[in-house]
Amino acid sequence: MRIERLKEFIAEKELDGILITYKPNLFYFTGSAPVLGGYLLVTPDEELFLVPQLEYEEAKENSRVPVEYFKKGADLYEKLKAFNLKRLGIEGRTSYSSVQSLKEKVGVEEFAVVDDVIKELRMVKTPEEIEVIKRACQIADKAMLVAIEEVREGVREREVAAKMEYVMKMEGAEKTAFDTIIASGWRSALPHGIASDKRIERGELVVIDEGALFNHYHSDITRTVVAGSPNEKQREIYEIVLEAQKKGVEEARPGITAKELDTIVRDVIAEYGYGDYFIHSTGHGVGLEIHEWPGINQNDETVLKPGMVITIEPGIYIPKFGGVRIEDTIVITENGAERLTKTERELI
Amino acid sequence: MRIERLKEFIAEKELDGILITYKPNLFYFTGSAPVLGGYLLVTPDEELFLVPQLEYEEAKENSRVPVEYFKKGADLYEKLKAFNLKRLGIEGRTSYSSVQSLKEKVGVEEFAVVDDVIKELRMVKTPEEIEVIKRACQIADKAMLVAIEEVREGVREREVAAKMEYVMKMEGAEKTAFDTIIASGWRSALPHGIASDKRIERGELVVIDEGALFNHYHSDITRTVVAGSPNEKQREIYEIVLEAQKKGVEEARPGITAKELDTIVRDVIAEYGYGDYFIHSTGHGVGLEIHEWPGINQNDETVLKPGMVITIEPGIYIPKFGGVRIEDTIVITENGAERLTKTERELI
Repeated sequence: MRIERLKEFIAEKELDGILITYKPNLFYFTGSAPVLGGYLLVTPDEELFLVPQLEYEEAKENSRVPVEYFKKGADLYEKLKAFNLKRLGIEGRTSYSSVQSLKEKVGVEEFAVVDDVIKELRMVKTPEEIEVIKRACQIADKAMLVAIEEVREGVREREVAAKMEYVMKMEGAEKTAFDTIIASGWRSALPHGIASDKRIERGELVVIDEGALFNHYHSDITRTVVAGSPNEKQREIYEIVLEAQKKGVEEARPGITAKELDTIVRDVIAEYGYGDYFIHSTGHGVGLEIHEWPGINQNDETVLKPGMVITIEPGIYIPKFGGVRIEDTIVITENGAERLTKTERELI
Repeated sequence: MRIERLKEFIAEKELDGILITYKPNLFYFTGSAPVLGGYLLVTPDEELFLVPQLEYEEAKENSRVPVEYFKKGADLYEKLKAFNLKRLGIEGRTSYSSVQSLKEKVGVEEFAVVDDVIKELRMVKTPEEIEVIKRACQIADKAMLVAIEEVREGVREREVAAKMEYVMKMEGAEKTAFDTIIASGWRSALPHGIASDKRIERGELVVIDEGALFNHYHSDITRTVVAGSPNEKQREIYEIVLEAQKKGVEEARPGITAKELDTIVRDVIAEYGYGDYFIHSTGHGVGLEIHEWPGINQNDETVLKPGMVITIEPGIYIPKFGGVRIEDTIVITENGAERLTKTERELI
């Protein structure tokens, strides 16, 4: 079905084939993820996964598509040339150098970008994909409990991250879904405050943003806590972000656009006068990549559909004072949305 | 000096500028590493680092090059257009979509690939870079001791990796330099046997291949041990790989080519009749990327120079039986080479 959709595109655009090289897409279409990469060629009549010789055994075992190996670049281009590819579909991210080689060594004359087709497919997850993402979310929840436990006066941010990541790995994660953010005090006002050697001090806000990679799929969750007791202002912005986040989860449903959902969440924060301090998107799609489609922001008019997996993650960041962000990974269902990360949200 | 070299290339090729977007290169030329990336423009007269608004504060703090921010893609292309870039140098990995945008929105008419200039610069490390890599190697050595300690009958590969990675992080690593390989028994015959749920059994070969990322620089080390006592055949192939690896470190020096060094190491293994089981390169450059230049293989004729940092990592892989690999990160000195990873090599 996935490859059939590529063949429809080939027919629509009268192409001789499509060449896929981006690793998340290779895994999506073949079921195999060679460390050194590979080349999936789809033509009107067939499909073939070309991998480096070192990856042949692994690819043959996992790929749903017939596999052949090549010994070096020259050999690869030779094999591709035999398919007489004049009009070729490629990913927009295909490199300038690859495009030059496809022109000069394979004889390709025209290119068409297939990104939109791949996006439409990957954006709506199958029940099997959702099960895997759920597992990635469960691991992230377990890691979050460890982090909340470890956050206290005197502990280094890095130490919290190290303990959390150990638990993730022991729970079956391949690795973290992205560089763990543990941002305390003034650093919590940085949306990308990757865990540093800073020690957490009493009364500081601590933003914990983490996720697990499980069987190639990602999860993403953020909680904010205070090391000790929150002051009034910390509690105020926490309550606003929490209200906005809950509203976002409640309003997420089939038929609404990503932009509309962003507006709903943004408006909650704006109404309290903190609109200028919510400096990023409301969320993003999650799947084989940590940031994928749709973007929950003012530039994305994608209509949400059942099976889409997105984050809802409003935040307020006040320079020097600190920041609060609360985030869940959710899946759009037939008539609403379900939280896949389930860690308690009332933490301050 | 680094940017001066780009300006020389601009003059040589009569370009209007060079646009750099690959993160390791951005860090190399600016000293800043925005999570969301950025665009370094170098023209005959000036240089400018354009970053997304969210990254402006971080970039301004770390960049050696003047920084400006853009709000979205349209704004970025607007800024670039003002420089009247008809002939532009780009990285070969620049995406097809970016190249199309540069043509259509910025008015670029011709492209030149600057990869060789960047490679020549990055391949020879400064004393400051070598110090950082040394620290990354020390962390990898500490992690290796933990792994060797943890490897025993009944322990899961994943558990060894989790404990090692915890130590790495606590020692100051940003993260692992790559997915940790813990490959036991039949899996040790896979050059890319990323730590799995398999339990280590008594008498199995266990290949441990790991590295740390420290301050943007990588380290890379492999050791092979046996859980219990080695048998005769295990000891035989271990001794051969060890002899080849030591020979490689001894013969690495300025003036020899990467290909010659590969041949020297390969010949040791071939003389014992295991040539067909050494199925990869002898090594690779290490720096801002885990695999960079030169490649220590039959296709790379780079003449080694003081300051180059490479790995020497021969291996013998016998399907179903198992494999042995021994690897150090080394730096080429004025008259030889120095091991930067120092874990004992006589382990079987």
